[in-house]
Amino acid sequence: MSNLGVFNCFVLTAVKSAQKMADPWQECMDYAVTLARQAGEVVREAIKNEMNVMVKSSPADLVTATDQKIEKMLLSSIKEKYPSHSFIGEESVAAGEKSVLTDSPTWIIDPIDGTTNFVHRFPFVAVSIGFTVNKKMEFGVVYSCLEDKMYTGRKGKGAFCNGQKLQVSQQEDITKSLLVTEFGSSRTPETVRIILSNLERLLCIPIHGIRGVGTAAINMCLVATGVADAYYEMGIHCWDMAGAGIIVTEAGGVLMDVTGEPFDLMSRRIIAANSKTLAERIAKEIQVVPFQRDDED
Amino acid sequence: MSNLGVFNCFVLTAVKSAQKMADPWQECMDYAVTLARQAGEVVREAIKNEMNVMVKSSPADLVTATDQKIEKMLLSSIKEKYPSHSFIGEESVAAGEKSVLTDSPTWIIDPIDGTTNFVHRFPFVAVSIGFTVNKKMEFGVVYSCLEDKMYTGRKGKGAFCNGQKLQVSQQEDITKSLLVTEFGSSRTPETVRIILSNLERLLCIPIHGIRGVGTAAINMCLVATGVADAYYEMGIHCWDMAGAGIIVTEAGGVLMDVTGEPFDLMSRRIIAANSKTLAERIAKEIQVVPFQRDDED
Repeated sequence: MSNLGVFNCFVLTAVKSAQKMADPWQECMDYAVTLARQAGEVVREAIKNEMNVMVKSSPADLVTATDQKIEKMLLSSIKEKYPSHSFIGEESVAAGEKSVLTDSPTWIIDPIDGTTNFVHRFPFVAVSIGFTVNKKMEFGVVYSCLEDKMYTGRKGKGAFCNGQKLQVSQQEDITKSLLVTEFGSSRTPETVRIILSNLERLLCIPIHGIRGVGTAAINMCLVATGVADAYYEMGIHCWDMAGAGIIVTEAGGVLMDVTGEPFDLMSRRIIAANSKTLAERIAKEIQVVPFQRDDED
Repeated sequence: MSNLGVFNCFVLTAVKSAQKMADPWQECMDYAVTLARQAGEVVREAIKNEMNVMVKSSPADLVTATDQKIEKMLLSSIKEKYPSHSFIGEESVAAGEKSVLTDSPTWIIDPIDGTTNFVHRFPFVAVSIGFTVNKKMEFGVVYSCLEDKMYTGRKGKGAFCNGQKLQVSQQEDITKSLLVTEFGSSRTPETVRIILSNLERLLCIPIHGIRGVGTAAINMCLVATGVADAYYEMGIHCWDMAGAGIIVTEAGGVLMDVTGEPFDLMSRRIIAANSKTLAERIAKEIQVVPFQRDDED
């Protein structure tokens, strides 16, 4: 190597390590994007074939071999590259692992957000990867694989979809707002009744309308994109919210608990809105459905 | 022109007129596809700009200058080419025209199905063109302009999306079905209450889930594509159903009234399902909301 070559090499290494010091988690985020894309490829292949569908907590809470396969694939890749990091994954928890958030760098993963959509080939299916350090969201990656849309959010650096910067809407008047939510997978009559009476109160404010594409992560990304003004839901899990949560806040939005209190990733509930004003207005109308926390035994 | 040229020209004319006799409405359908694509271009341009939103029958029933502009554009193009044909269009009816279905060849048009989506830039917006002769649907064209998906159905010739043949799903077991519907634009408390109690009964059968992308035409095309098993709604109009109705039946699905009786285009209500079995099962759960018929004064 020439002297100049050695010098260039030194400069490159110095720049890279300076970047790393300035943003120690950027490398993890780049890796998450690569992994999400690989997982999306598996989803797109698997959706062409027959599926063996199993039920979990209710007849509407589904899982397939592909959910499990992708989670194993992600878990082993992450463990190999970052052996000291922690991991919370939907299917690992279903298989008996604990989901307790610690201060460790933690990867929070939903291998397929929108499994019911996946089973029906309804075109909104996401791979969701969230990453926390000291229990705070550092970055999120949501890959809407059938649309080939890669949503990312990095703390302090903004949110993007396929390279395009995201910005929430400006509409703070609830009577002119479009909300996204879901009916959820619980079929317990009392839960369904509360979910519907919340919808009734919101519709009759009145508001412009309510949509739902069947995945929490993509619904939240629609808020980040500004095409929906707010999303709320109860009964979902940390892996449904950890990837998209920071995408919403980095697009200028806010996260709030449905009670109006600060958002809690392990609480199984969320309002993700374009503004504090709209989030608080929605919180006023919502009757809480009691769900066991993600970190409760 | 050589003798061979004259002969070829003669053959071509003969083939074309034979095709026209065999299928007198094919030319109209080709024209409808061209018009829908032009209208979609106007939608895509208009969505980039600020909009002046007006309300119609309720605070959630919206209209913009673009709806009116596209309808005028379609109406004048059709009147020029087919001066003897009849026309029913959403915005013409809003402006006081009658919507009565006669035996004439009739173009039934929704310039923008999903105006609320359009206003919010929520990515499902359709131009819908249906065509009836002797009150029977002959063809339908639904252009989902933000996705650039052109859905078509021609009586006896099948249904297609961007050239790909459509086929409804095979799932006849309601407990494993995914439905699409909407909350509608009425905000009358009694109407909202019935709509929600229908949802409650369906959810608790139980079913896999309910989705809604905010346009009747695209919801119905999702049934034709097989990614949703059935769609139902009350309170919509003939222009919301005329384009997509024949797309569903040509994809192998069925249309039925929510009472279980035969489908009636002017009744303001529909079940569009993959099968008679599923449609009848849904009809059993639905309490009818009374809406004034499209052809009632």
